[in-house]
Amino acid sequence: MAEPAPLSPEEWSFWDAWMQAQRLLATEVDRALQHDFGISKAEFSILVKLQAAPDGRMRVTDLAGSLDWEKSRVAHQLTRMERRGLLERSEAGAAGRRTGVALTASGKDVVGRAIRGHERTIRRLALDRLSPEQAVAIGAWSRGLIDQLS
Amino acid sequence: MAEPAPLSPEEWSFWDAWMQAQRLLATEVDRALQHDFGISKAEFSILVKLQAAPDGRMRVTDLAGSLDWEKSRVAHQLTRMERRGLLERSEAGAAGRRTGVALTASGKDVVGRAIRGHERTIRRLALDRLSPEQAVAIGAWSRGLIDQLS
Repeated sequence: MAEPAPLSPEEWSFWDAWMQAQRLLATEVDRALQHDFGISKAEFSILVKLQAAPDGRMRVTDLAGSLDWEKSRVAHQLTRMERRGLLERSEAGAAGRRTGVALTASGKDVVGRAIRGHERTIRRLALDRLSPEQAVAIGAWSRGLIDQLS
Repeated sequence: MAEPAPLSPEEWSFWDAWMQAQRLLATEVDRALQHDFGISKAEFSILVKLQAAPDGRMRVTDLAGSLDWEKSRVAHQLTRMERRGLLERSEAGAAGRRTGVALTASGKDVVGRAIRGHERTIRRLALDRLSPEQAVAIGAWSRGLIDQLS
């Protein structure tokens, strides 16, 4: 098979612009969560998972599994968030080990407001800026890549 | 101003697929650099900057500035890469301080091959998968977002 051609200046420019735009979008979305609600993207992910669980309560093992994170990473985040009153550890295992975690009332309030704010941000930065043709193209590209790579 | 509507299930699905596709793309591009050339994305960024400099040589301060990274982050990467023989620190400042950095012959070889490999990866994972309409749509979206956010 012949060696594919190196990228042309136009192809590099297209690729660089695309990657820069994605970085800007991701940065702005994270910045809005931090600025408006004082929570990081990682904290938001945990709060959303807990909010979707019955009674806002999960086993830490299940939480780590559903996020596909290392348990040590989850534990580190939980410690910080417990200190800020967003959640509390609970005894859920044998021998009184604190293997459960649950949203506090304050945590439930924060996650509810943060989800609504996150929706506004996504609409403002992404959805409102796309023409119907751009949305169709990006949707088709996304699904195609996910089918092939995931 | 009225509160914007929450995202519909279709809008969430579109947004989630888009972000997942971008993560998969970025992960695959980084994984290919690591697998094929044994270098991380951060190392690649440094090697590319040095390769573009006259004689493969820069002041560490200028290198950090051109990457928009903290000097401590650059220093940490340089130490690791010097150990692997990809570059060497040199005296470039007053009083014999090692404020310069230059690619070694081995570093020049690695960066040349890695750039060609990176081009093949971008073509295979991104450019070859886009229809002309998708490329036009993504290009226009990228430039619009950069104009507004950067």
